[in-house]
Amino acid sequence: MQEVHIDLGARSYAIHIGSGLLARLGNYLKEFRFTPRVLLVTNPVVGSLYGEAATAALENAGFEVLRAEIPEGEEYKSLVTAEKLYDLAYTRELDRRSPVVALGGGVVGDLAGFVAATYLRGVPFVQVPTTLLAQVDSSVGGKVAVNHPRGKNIIGAFYQPRLVLADLDVLKTLDPREVRAGLAEVIKYGVIADGDFFAWLEENLERLLALEAGPLARAVAASCRIKARVVQEDETEQGRRAILNFGHTLGHALEALTGYTTYRHGEAVAIGMAAAARLAAALGMLPESSAARLVNLIRRAGLPVDMPPELPTGDLLASMRRDKKVLAGRLTFVLPVEIGRVEIVRDVPEEAVERVLRLCRNQG
Amino acid sequence: MQEVHIDLGARSYAIHIGSGLLARLGNYLKEFRFTPRVLLVTNPVVGSLYGEAATAALENAGFEVLRAEIPEGEEYKSLVTAEKLYDLAYTRELDRRSPVVALGGGVVGDLAGFVAATYLRGVPFVQVPTTLLAQVDSSVGGKVAVNHPRGKNIIGAFYQPRLVLADLDVLKTLDPREVRAGLAEVIKYGVIADGDFFAWLEENLERLLALEAGPLARAVAASCRIKARVVQEDETEQGRRAILNFGHTLGHALEALTGYTTYRHGEAVAIGMAAAARLAAALGMLPESSAARLVNLIRRAGLPVDMPPELPTGDLLASMRRDKKVLAGRLTFVLPVEIGRVEIVRDVPEEAVERVLRLCRNQG
Ligand SMILES: NC(=O)c1ccc[n+]([C@@H]2O[C@H](COP(=O)([O-])OP(=O)(O)OC[C@H]3O[C@@H](n4cnc5c(N)ncnc54)[C@H](O)[C@@H]3O)[C@@H](O)[C@H]2O)c1
Ligand SMILES: NC(=O)c1ccc[n+]([C@@H]2O[C@H](COP(=O)([O-])OP(=O)(O)OC[C@H]3O[C@@H](n4cnc5c(N)ncnc54)[C@H](O)[C@@H]3O)[C@@H](O)[C@H]2O)c1
Ligand SMILES: [Zn+2]
Ligand SMILES: [Zn+2]
Repeated sequence: MQEVHIDLGARSYAIHIGSGLLARLGNYLKEFRFTPRVLLVTNPVVGSLYGEAATAALENAGFEVLRAEIPEGEEYKSLVTAEKLYDLAYTRELDRRSPVVALGGGVVGDLAGFVAATYLRGVPFVQVPTTLLAQVDSSVGGKVAVNHPRGKNIIGAFYQPRLVLADLDVLKTLDPREVRAGLAEVIKYGVIADGDFFAWLEENLERLLALEAGPLARAVAASCRIKARVVQEDETEQGRRAILNFGHTLGHALEALTGYTTYRHGEAVAIGMAAAARLAAALGMLPESSAARLVNLIRRAGLPVDMPPELPTGDLLASMRRDKKVLAGRLTFVLPVEIGRVEIVRDVPEEAVERVLRLCRNQG
Repeated sequence: MQEVHIDLGARSYAIHIGSGLLARLGNYLKEFRFTPRVLLVTNPVVGSLYGEAATAALENAGFEVLRAEIPEGEEYKSLVTAEKLYDLAYTRELDRRSPVVALGGGVVGDLAGFVAATYLRGVPFVQVPTTLLAQVDSSVGGKVAVNHPRGKNIIGAFYQPRLVLADLDVLKTLDPREVRAGLAEVIKYGVIADGDFFAWLEENLERLLALEAGPLARAVAASCRIKARVVQEDETEQGRRAILNFGHTLGHALEALTGYTTYRHGEAVAIGMAAAARLAAALGMLPESSAARLVNLIRRAGLPVDMPPELPTGDLLASMRRDKKVLAGRLTFVLPVEIGRVEIVRDVPEEAVERVLRLCRNQG
């Protein structure tokens, strides 16, 4: 088992990574001063696979479990769904020390986290991430949110969990496409912060794709450690935390313009990372060979590196200007300067971006 | 002018209290690194009285003002109203540094604050409280919330403003009943934390009721200072902050059981404080003479001290057990041990509470 500590003063917490953790969920929770009624939030897919095990683990440790299943899909990460959970929590008299436990991927985690952050002005929150993306990214760092009909993650908060349990066993039932999408974020961590980890990924990619326990534990822990370091420096994303958005400026735009149906988030980020590397190379900030290494690893992970030819460049630019992190409409990119280090570049010239976007269409 | 500083590390801010501050709103905001588009949230009553002045002050300082009026009334402090504001903010492209300014009483402040806390995971928030209650209580300390159809302030956050401007001039248009309701909270501060301030209130009550500038500034500043001290010790209400709820356990129950229409919040709190003092005296914790002083000052402020005879004691007890601050159904009261000091008493015997509730009905 691996442990990663997130050091945020009074809001510190531990991430436990390993096999067989789900069965010990109740024991972990018993260590806290929670009241014994737990709101377990999941969805039908994850609920049918792991709902019983999670409930049994909690009940064996003396907790009473209220189980809430939200429908499958990003469109239910909404205020409407949140209201149903508030309602349940209130009518079942959950108090300020009753934990909300998220059992699922990033959709369940973000929504349950938003409810935990805002019900009674904040109740304890526990993450049991069940997708690779959730284990290496969304469950770590305290971003919680719901979508607004007009945009993703528009309504949210920074709210840290009290505990994260990443059980690697549950990844075995995951659609391989989801595994690859999660790997996009793993690769991201290598590029933004750790060249050695990136090289290790180049060596171990096949073992990760096969979900081998040892390499998987190492990759998840390394990813969480890198994210933890960044989050500790800048909890509420005033500055440096933005490096986590490497690949995301274009990634978000792609997702938005394709109505969130064509790409998994990690796939859009994969294209975004490839484009950012090419942009950095075009601007003379990154050696061509490093850009090629990144594009190559993304490809080997079975992820896309090129854009659909039909998306108008103008729409992409307009969408990027609308990004949450953008201030006053200026195009900001996180660009690699070597494998293992990135910089936040404001006011990237639009011509350069346009040129690279065209390039990303022609290559194949 | 008086200034009170709330010292919360990176979340510190100043409260400015005095005359003519509204006209300088824009100048104050210019001191921050905000983007120049401001969301000004108010309601029709306050908007028609002070909306123009606030807008002009902001525009003269170079800000562009988006004005949003939420309908008058507590029932619009809701997620439904919040959604309209998210929508406006998003379609008008407010970014993460665009401030939300609340111009109004506690309803406007709590709602606008909740939106500021959650839009894009938090944007700058500025309070311009226009009721006495908002100036001495709701604008200070960072509690923001909306109501759930089933209960008040069920959905919220702890989110500190960047600045509070309490312009005393605007209180002149306030309904005298609102002034008295605000005074209930002012009296509360004396009881929980400062016997000298309480004595000063006994001397200056008539001047406060007449809204004389000097005493008013002093009372508002003293109240904010006391609240600041408590909030600094316990920002997220893990323990000591609960003393601010003196008079509120019963107060909230009274408001809830009368459908929030019979009493202004301060009036319910007034009854709650009188009952708490009598309860403390009945339990031998407080001299009868001190209880009498408190009941007397509340009466002189034109506030109620007794309960409506028709409310069943059982309903009141049940409602108090549902209070947000209650853990696992135990009755907790904040009880005075002298004028200027209170204690948090858990597990108050129900018989004693019942006895006092009956008493509060019989006295006149
Ligand atoms: N909070 C953050 O910092 C952060 C970071 C990145 C992404 N996100 C959010 O995360 C969401 C995406 O998360 P996701 O990629 O985990 O998607 P998801 O939650 O939709 O899960 C993907 C699919 O896998 C299924 N699933 C989950 N666990 C499974 C398991 N163990 N076995 C079989 N099937 C399983 C789900 O039912 C779903 O169909 C987005 O809403 C995104 O905005 C948040
Ligand atoms: N956040 C906190 O810590 C906190 C603390 C106490 C109360 N509250 C909340 O505050 C709310 C009550 O606040 P309130 O008592 O200010 O009520 P309110 O906001 O409803 O204002 C009272 C009335 O006065 C009017 N008004 C406001 N300013 C005026 C002015 N200058 N001149 C004329 N009319 C004016 C309003 O339109 C309204 O009709 C409740 O929702 C309560 O939950 C919050
Ligand atoms: Zn991502
Ligand atoms: Zn109050």
